[in-house]
Amino acid sequence: MAAHDLVIGFDADDTLWHNENIFERSHERFRELLARHHDAATVDRTLFATEMRNLELYGYGVKGFTLSAIETAIHLTEGKISAAEIQEIVELGREMLAHPVELLDGAADILATLALRHRLLLITKGDIRDQERKLAKSELAAHFHQVEIVSEKNPETYARILRRHTIAPERFLMVGNSVKSDILPVLTLGGAGVHIPYRLLWEHERTEETADAVGRVFVIDSLRKLPGVVAVLA
Amino acid sequence: MAAHDLVIGFDADDTLWHNENIFERSHERFRELLARHHDAATVDRTLFATEMRNLELYGYGVKGFTLSAIETAIHLTEGKISAAEIQEIVELGREMLAHPVELLDGAADILATLALRHRLLLITKGDIRDQERKLAKSELAAHFHQVEIVSEKNPETYARILRRHTIAPERFLMVGNSVKSDILPVLTLGGAGVHIPYRLLWEHERTEETADAVGRVFVIDSLRKLPGVVAVLA
Repeated sequence: MAAHDLVIGFDADDTLWHNENIFERSHERFRELLARHHDAATVDRTLFATEMRNLELYGYGVKGFTLSAIETAIHLTEGKISAAEIQEIVELGREMLAHPVELLDGAADILATLALRHRLLLITKGDIRDQERKLAKSELAAHFHQVEIVSEKNPETYARILRRHTIAPERFLMVGNSVKSDILPVLTLGGAGVHIPYRLLWEHERTEETADAVGRVFVIDSLRKLPGVVAVLA
Repeated sequence: MAAHDLVIGFDADDTLWHNENIFERSHERFRELLARHHDAATVDRTLFATEMRNLELYGYGVKGFTLSAIETAIHLTEGKISAAEIQEIVELGREMLAHPVELLDGAADILATLALRHRLLLITKGDIRDQERKLAKSELAAHFHQVEIVSEKNPETYARILRRHTIAPERFLMVGNSVKSDILPVLTLGGAGVHIPYRLLWEHERTEETADAVGRVFVIDSLRKLPGVVAVLA
């Protein structure tokens, strides 16, 4: 296919900028807050279960995480947690939202290079204001033709986005750190995917499925290797 | 202009379905929870101030409201509120998210009629998952050509949406209950607006400005009168 015909979609969190490390530090502080009551494994397991139970209602993002953490803390202390400690959890959430954006190695260069020859889309899930703020802080916005902030990354979502921007699936390449959210749904539609694992993966993003569509899946260990894959595909 | 050339944008909350009445009931329950500590006016004033301080970080929607309510309750009781009472606030938020969608009079009929001759857009602000869920529950989704869930309704947002869907501002009509969010920014761009006041208006949506662009602003008291306005414009 002609180079300019390839449209490239990018995930944001843990693909272009660090995110899960911020959650990791929040989990640590949450465990410390509850250490008098429960061991770390119990805290982690209960928080994750609360998040999963609330996911349909809250969706992804820091605000829902904060509400689930408050609920978990009340539950695990049988109501003995103090208001001051709950306020600490509220502050923890606020710090996550206000956290600086730290780009992954090569993100700015690679986007600038690829944007010269391809339409680039940003496709990310989470709280809309938070994702917009992170994009603004990243200073990467100008490279993207369109930005789509969605509530779930499944085949229906990608199909809607491709339809909306008149992109044939076979000329769409999605780049992201989650096989479950970034790669598998795009393969289902007939597109291609580049998986760039991040050192941390939220338990909810884990999948048993492997992405093995011949010639349509690539695994690289750095964004810096993306132009090489694009050159092969385009 | 030819009838089919007019594209009509709709706000959702308090324009197509009831919303502010749900917040009104939550405010009542929040006041009751704090009645031992403070009078209703102090509770309302402090909650609103907390919401406004957090708006930039949280954005619009029920999750941010819930977090602001928790923070307000801790502050107003000087940390004396119990974990069980905070859990009640968490539940209050969850009930708001799970609340049934009650359409405003005429919403389904009017959209069905207008969709026959016009492209209809839904343009709403708030938490993405919550707005999508309400749209699904409303059973109105099929009438809309596109749905845009945004973080803020200002001229930049509307300009981006009109560009994205290749709509000239002079053939765009926005329908909503908020002069500040639905009418003024669209008039700024050269579009037209139909203001349908709802019986309640969140303090943040109040504006001193009046929408007085001659021939481009209409005020009606029911969605049922919208086809009449559209007939004049189209």
